[in-house]
Amino acid sequence: MYELFYWPNIQGRGEFVRLAFEEAGVPYLDVAREPRGMVAMRALLAKRGGSPAPFAPPFIRTNGMLVAQTAVILDFIAPRIALVPRAEAKRVAAHQLQLTVMDLVTEVHDTHHPISVGLYYRDQKREARRRTTAFLAERAPKFFGYFERQLASMAPKGPYLFGSRPCYVDLSLFQVVEGLRYAFPSSMRKLERSARRLVALHDRVAERRRIKSYICSPRRLPFNEDGIFRHYPELDREE
Amino acid sequence: MYELFYWPNIQGRGEFVRLAFEEAGVPYLDVAREPRGMVAMRALLAKRGGSPAPFAPPFIRTNGMLVAQTAVILDFIAPRIALVPRAEAKRVAAHQLQLTVMDLVTEVHDTHHPISVGLYYRDQKREARRRTTAFLAERAPKFFGYFERQLASMAPKGPYLFGSRPCYVDLSLFQVVEGLRYAFPSSMRKLERSARRLVALHDRVAERRRIKSYICSPRRLPFNEDGIFRHYPELDREE
Repeated sequence: MYELFYWPNIQGRGEFVRLAFEEAGVPYLDVAREPRGMVAMRALLAKRGGSPAPFAPPFIRTNGMLVAQTAVILDFIAPRIALVPRAEAKRVAAHQLQLTVMDLVTEVHDTHHPISVGLYYRDQKREARRRTTAFLAERAPKFFGYFERQLASMAPKGPYLFGSRPCYVDLSLFQVVEGLRYAFPSSMRKLERSARRLVALHDRVAERRRIKSYICSPRRLPFNEDGIFRHYPELDREE
Repeated sequence: MYELFYWPNIQGRGEFVRLAFEEAGVPYLDVAREPRGMVAMRALLAKRGGSPAPFAPPFIRTNGMLVAQTAVILDFIAPRIALVPRAEAKRVAAHQLQLTVMDLVTEVHDTHHPISVGLYYRDQKREARRRTTAFLAERAPKFFGYFERQLASMAPKGPYLFGSRPCYVDLSLFQVVEGLRYAFPSSMRKLERSARRLVALHDRVAERRRIKSYICSPRRLPFNEDGIFRHYPELDREE
């Protein structure tokens, strides 16, 4: 049994882990959404002795082991729930792609918090607009172009990065497209024109039985303005 | 034989990998610092087919395998060069600590580039000052406090995170202290007062025979204002 610890009111980085469990059909407890779950999560963040405490959510607990850092969690669980090929070279390839996804996610976060996580968005709005402009004009196309090329070269016949079965990175790329569509609907229409493989991958993941049923379930939290992907219309570039 | 690919003129993220090879006494070729090395590096960044191309340096090549993303490189090489304990739980612990180091490194980078990597520092100076103030007041103390607590709870008797032998995370923490001392000498004097274990760890690593000889060698590039840790006096807080 896996216990997931993450903020109960947002998709955030925890969503990449939730999507993996959901696609694999593996039962997991989303602890902080249970009664007294936040107390348990805070106790583990402050824990001392033995293995390191997590720096921040998400983290998981399984067989008494705590694993933190989104990409490490995925690298740890994926071979156990059949969401990555077995060969070491492919596991390493998936892991490095996932870290690049996480780098992109950090940059998305910083579009609305370019100065400090300790300040509200409204207190860094001018800087947010400047950073978002650069993100949409340079960084998003760079990341999209990168994933587009890897999809073309790793899996020319697709449908997934490693061929016929989805791995956790496919699910994370689905989530990135979902999130960016929510945050920047107008800019994404333009960005997607040069990212056909990525969009096709997104659509295939969206059609998977378990993902589809998860997205329609109350377990899938809606995007909102406390999460990483936030919709502030003033940041979304005009067409 | 390991080939390392990284920008030839800065320590940057490549330095975390260099320190690991140096401490382990493992021969490696710093390819981009060799004649025609930059051409080779650029060709691999643009490669297609098979395993994914790296998104960015650093990456390594060994036995025909390309591995990118600093923390993935370290997780990959460490068991092979005896820079991490063998048990899976400890390897995972080291890896998640390293990713937290890398998160800190990204935040250090963003102190001088809070808006865009596509702009010069001089074009985002006002925002850099604001971000640096928040970094030094909130983020650096949070990361330092975290590592201080993990050092106390994982290795109460030290001298290293996992006991008597250094692992690659110890080397990375040494590098973070070195870098922050270069970038923010005045602020660091204050920060170090609440980070005695971290400073003690830094000092122990600095005294290691191979690290000492590396630091004095021409292989160790000096810190400079093209790297991640940059000294801009106007960003360093007054005592």
